[in-house]
This record gives sequence, structure tokens and C-alpha cells, in this order.
Amino acid sequence: FPLGNRMNKPRTAGLTMIIDKGLGLGETRDLLNLAGGYIDFFKLGFGTSALYENNMLEEKIHLVRSHGVDIYPGGTFLEVAILQDKLKQYLTTARDFGFTAIEVSDGTIDLPLDLRAEAITAAVDMGFKVLSEVGKKDPNDDFEIKEIVQLVNHDLSLGAAHVIVEGRESGKAVGLYDKEGNLIQSDLEELVHSIGDPTCLIWEAPIKDQQQELIIRFGPNVNFGNINPHEVLALEALRVGLRADTLKAILQKKPK
Amino acid sequence: FPLGNRMNKPRTAGLTMIIDKGLGLGETRDLLNLAGGYIDFFKLGFGTSALYENNMLEEKIHLVRSHGVDIYPGGTFLEVAILQDKLKQYLTTARDFGFTAIEVSDGTIDLPLDLRAEAITAAVDMGFKVLSEVGKKDPNDDFEIKEIVQLVNHDLSLGAAHVIVEGRESGKAVGLYDKEGNLIQSDLEELVHSIGDPTCLIWEAPIKDQQQELIIRFGPNVNFGNINPHEVLALEALRVGLRADTLKAILQKKPK
Amino acid sequence: FPLGNRMNKPRTAGLTMIIDKGLGLGETRDLLNLAGGYIDFFKLGFGTSALYENNMLEEKIHLVRSHGVDIYPGGTFLEVAILQDKLKQYLTTARDFGFTAIEVSDGTIDLPLDLRAEAITAAVDMGFKVLSEVGKKDPNDDFEIKEIVQLVNHDLSLGAAHVIVEGRESGKAVGLYDKEGNLIQSDLEELVHSIGDPTCLIWEAPIKDQQQELIIRFGPNVNFGNINPHEVLALEALRVGLRADTLKAILQKKPK
Repeated sequence: FPLGNRMNKPRTAGLTMIIDKGLGLGETRDLLNLAGGYIDFFKLGFGTSALYENNMLEEKIHLVRSHGVDIYPGGTFLEVAILQDKLKQYLTTARDFGFTAIEVSDGTIDLPLDLRAEAITAAVDMGFKVLSEVGKKDPNDDFEIKEIVQLVNHDLSLGAAHVIVEGRESGKAVGLYDKEGNLIQSDLEELVHSIGDPTCLIWEAPIKDQQQELIIRFGPNVNFGNINPHEVLALEALRVGLRADTLKAILQKKPK
Repeated sequence: FPLGNRMNKPRTAGLTMIIDKGLGLGETRDLLNLAGGYIDFFKLGFGTSALYENNMLEEKIHLVRSHGVDIYPGGTFLEVAILQDKLKQYLTTARDFGFTAIEVSDGTIDLPLDLRAEAITAAVDMGFKVLSEVGKKDPNDDFEIKEIVQLVNHDLSLGAAHVIVEGRESGKAVGLYDKEGNLIQSDLEELVHSIGDPTCLIWEAPIKDQQQELIIRFGPNVNFGNINPHEVLALEALRVGLRADTLKAILQKKPK
Repeated sequence: FPLGNRMNKPRTAGLTMIIDKGLGLGETRDLLNLAGGYIDFFKLGFGTSALYENNMLEEKIHLVRSHGVDIYPGGTFLEVAILQDKLKQYLTTARDFGFTAIEVSDGTIDLPLDLRAEAITAAVDMGFKVLSEVGKKDPNDDFEIKEIVQLVNHDLSLGAAHVIVEGRESGKAVGLYDKEGNLIQSDLEELVHSIGDPTCLIWEAPIKDQQQELIIRFGPNVNFGNINPHEVLALEALRVGLRADTLKAILQKKPK
């Protein structure tokens, strides 16, 4: 491969998290047979997991896990649970269904730091891999790099496995992305330089240009989130330099 | 659920119509097993139904109906039939294949009111659920609210089950949507205030922001059309408030 | 059908090439059962074919071929092989896996004319259908119609079956398309008038408006590339005039 050093599963970097907006069982099986080796986390987007019939949900979770992929319900669902003061019940139900990871986010609600800590700790204690998320979903809310850095360190110190940088499903007008979905380079660099080890971050980057920029910036083993299930192989080709965009970048770095 | 009162099937409001641009039998089965409870109408988009092999079309129709979902061919097909003066033949063929609904539209052709009435009446008489459609597909054509209101009342009086407000597959520069796909609020309110019961309308709203605005405006049981099959579960999450966008709106309405 | 004269398979014009970004075996089977009659070439996009397990790749190739569809790996892969001076090895491996066609492109690398000729000739000699491609993937590179015409004639004289006009997966800011994906009409006409027989060209046209314009310009049997697998039936409806956009164009041509 033109871009070497891509890590294999189970890996601690180069993670790919997909967002599932409603794949049927057959499609899920098909996807995992083809590309299961390139998927690390499987997120049932938004609160969709509440919309499955129980046995179908269990079967899907079982199927995903059998391919060595972690699976978890979208963060908005946990936010609703916290709002309704049902955190423990939520975590217990998630464990009973077979989910292996939990996302702790405050994309929509205002989550005081102590409640955030409580949620992370409770999920870690129950044996979940915890992915926390930083950044608001609403473009009108601020995205202060200093606050973000504090939050990242806070969450990791409590046992979060990774911290997701909010990019939404659209990748536009949120967090580090401007209205057109372009990366705001100055914010990116400020964030990266304030974080000790950027491999703890998972970048939600649904748009190809975002994936491309981040691969060129961080290399093939950068972590991605909110990847469209149908784009997993295309992303992998981008990672290893088998797609024009990253191939060209490699060629330009080499002496002619 | 944060947003309560979502109606179950069979329901008279909160309908979801999907547009199928060519799902295979396996994918169709997969989708219906997962989300059949959230789908009310299954439209074979454009004239695609003419492109199936006959036994595959029959099998697909049978499959969709077995999940309690109405199925019909896209309206453009009927427009072609009317152009060719083959309305009766078209309806008979549709019935023989097993379609349960018919769309009567004039998105492309000029359809005099008497021919429109004839088509609706003939389809109703043959036992079809009739969905008529208002609004032209061409952005250069006018969308006069007063005319639209007259047409809606005309169609309903002839037995149309619902009237679809044209949004096309793209949701942009058509009907109530401007070039960017934003709802033109003044037109929307004028239309709604002139119609006795807005639950008779099905809004073609392929874009998430459109769905979100209409849910916030009309509640979870608003009727949607031209939904991408892969977005049915995501739309349902939006309806019941399990997705950030509608959840936030609910939170803001509550006293803090 | 409103637009007559659509050719059936095997055909020499009206070809449809799809770009596969990672369809599973089940999805592939499903697609071919439904729409195999409307697909002529099946491209495993980018370098994704390198990311399959060997037996899954063989099974997929076998499946596609059993429906009378040619299959080939994306051109970027060959460019990498040429860069690494492994052309022969690449072609032999491709033949052993069962690929029936080869794309010779220089979308990313600088490919001297003699190496281009060597690649085309070698692939033709090994029995592949050769699709060469003109146009750079990078919007900053020039697209000189005169050069393009020379290249088209060059490739055809060496035995290329068709020449693809680069449109990328996005259809924007590349070749004949401007930043918004609109066809640059003057370039199109200059190109068409300089080529003896435009049916030798395959237009990469991933966006519906592009497909529509080219069908209106060249008729239903124009050749298309980079079609999304889920859009094959929709494209076919557009070709035969069963979709509003081309239907309207036909109606306007007829005397009222």
C-alpha cells in the first residue's frame, strides 16, 4: 500500500466508528462479512435502538459483537435518560441487551460536570467501554477550545476510553467545521497542541474532504466517527492511499 | 419517549411514505422486517415499476403488502398513461399486479380539471386508495396557494384519501421550498390556514431540516412523503424526540 | 415508453457503469437480480478491491460475471501499480481473480504517453476490455479539449473499447463540470464536434441533472459512468422518459 503502517484489529488507533441509521439484519450481516475488519465501533444512531423490536435488537447486537465490533446506542438516548433521572436503569438495560460501549454526551442538554462524571464512572464500573463526547450539536453554542481541552482530560482521567469530537451526522456548522464543512485549521491546531496524545480523540468526520484532510494531517491511523456504513471501504482506501486524494498528497511529498 | 402520542398502525395520521428508487427483494424484506411498523406507503418512484421483470414486481408487491403497507407506482407513470389516453388500461394493470394505491398527479403534464376528476374517481371506484398530488415539479411553474387550496378540496371531495404536497426527490426549489430547501413560512401558514384539516396533507420532505421543522410545527403525527428508505428509523427517532434536533425544541418549550 | 429506442444488452451504446464503494455479497446479488439487465460495467471503486478477503473478491467477481456484467478494479489501483513498476504483475493478478476489464487512467499520476500506450496494449493483448480515462481528478489541473481529443483518438487506435470522461465520484469541479456540477456547454460541444463518434465516450455523471442534460443532448443511449448502484433503476427511468425531467423535455419538443 502506498500509505504504510495501517494497524490491524484489535487496535488502539486507526479506529473507525460507523453510524447506523437503520440497517436491517441482512444488510448488517452483509456489511460485517465484507468490512467487519475495518470497523471498530458500531453506533445505533440517535435513539433508534428504542425503535427496534426487542428480539431483533438482541439479534443485531449479537451479530455485531460476533465480528469483534463494539456496539452502543447513540448519546442522545443517554441524555434523555439523564433528563428523566434514569441513568442507572438505562445502563442496566443497555448491559442486558448486550451493548458493550456507552456514549456520554451533552450535545443537546446542559450536563453539569458532576453528573457527567457520575455517568462516566457508573458506565466504567459496569464494564462498558466509555466514549465521551465534546462539543454541542447546536451551531449557536460556543466551542471553546480551552473548555474542550479541560473536558477531554477530565473524561480520560475518569476512565473514558476515547473522546469523540462532535461533528454530527452532517459535518457542517459544528465544532471544528464551518458552514461548508471545512476544518477550521487554527482551532484544530490549538486543540491538538493542548492535548497530550491526540490518538485519544475520535473525529466525527462524515464528509470525504474532512477524512482526507485529517489523514494527511495525522496519518492513516487517525480515529474516525460517524462514518456512513456504505463508506467504510472507501474510507479504508483513503487511509491506505489507494484513493486519488491521499495518493496525490503522498506523491507530492516525495522528491520528484 | 420525550414526544408522546405517536400513533400506531393502522393510523390515519403520522403517515410515512417512502420513495423506492430500486430496492432489491432482499433489501426490501430487510427494511420491512426492521421498520415495517413505521411505513404506511411504499412508492415505486418515477416509472421504475415498468422496469421490473413481471414476476419480480409481483413478488415485491406481495412482500410489501404482507407487512400491512400500501404500495403504488409513481405518479409520473400515470401521467404518461393519461397522455397516451390509456388511463383505464393503466388502472387495470396496476390492480392486476396487486398495487393497493394510486397517485394522481400533474407534476409534469397539464392536466385539465375534468381529466383529473375522472382519474381520481376511476381509481376510487376500482378500490384503490387515492393519493392526489398538488404542485408542479418545475421550479418555473407557479405555486399559487389559492389554487392549491381549491385543488386539495376538489380532490378530497372526490374521494382522495390524502393530498401530497409536491417536494420532489430533492426537496429544493419546488412548492413550499426555496432553492436551499428551506420552508417558505408565509406560504406554509397561508396554506395551513386555508385547509380545514391539515392531517389530510402528506408533505414530501426528503431533507432532515424540513422534517424537523414540520414536526416542531405540527407535532409527531404529521404525514411525510418521499422519505429515503434508509432514513425511516431516523425519521421515527425525530418524530418521538429521540434525536437531538427535536429534543432540543421540546426542552426549550418547558419551563426551566 | 415515451423515449423509444433504448438498446438491450449486450449493447454497444447506452452503457451504464456503476461505481461500487463496498457492496456486500448479498446486496450485490440483490442489485443484479433487480437491475442486472441495466448494468454493463461494474467498477470496484478506488483501490477497494485490495481490501477484500481473496475468496470474497473471487465470489463477488463470479457473481457479477454470471449476470453478463463486466467487472474491473478502479483506475487508481493501476496507477499505483505503474508507479511501483508492477504493471504486468497487476494485470496478471487481475486476470487470475477473474476481472474482465481494465481501466487505464492518469487521474492522479503523470503518465507519459508511451507508458499509457504500453498499459493499454498489454491489457488488450491479455484479453481485457480496456476502458481508458481522460481528465485529471485535481481541479487545478488543466482540461484542454485539444489534448483530450488527441488522447481519445490515441487510446481508441490502440484498442481501447471506450474512453471515460472523468467526472469523479462527486461530479463537481472536474473535467467538463464546474464547481456546482453544471456541464460547461461550450467545452462539451467543442469536444463532441472534434470526436468522430461520441458513442465511444462514457460520461462519468454521478448527479441527476448531469444525466438529464446528457440524455436530452444525446438521447437515451448515451453512456454513463460512476452511477450510484442505488440509482440504476432511476437512471433507466430517466433514459426512457419515465421520469418527470426527461418526460417534460420530450413534451416540449412535440407540437402542441
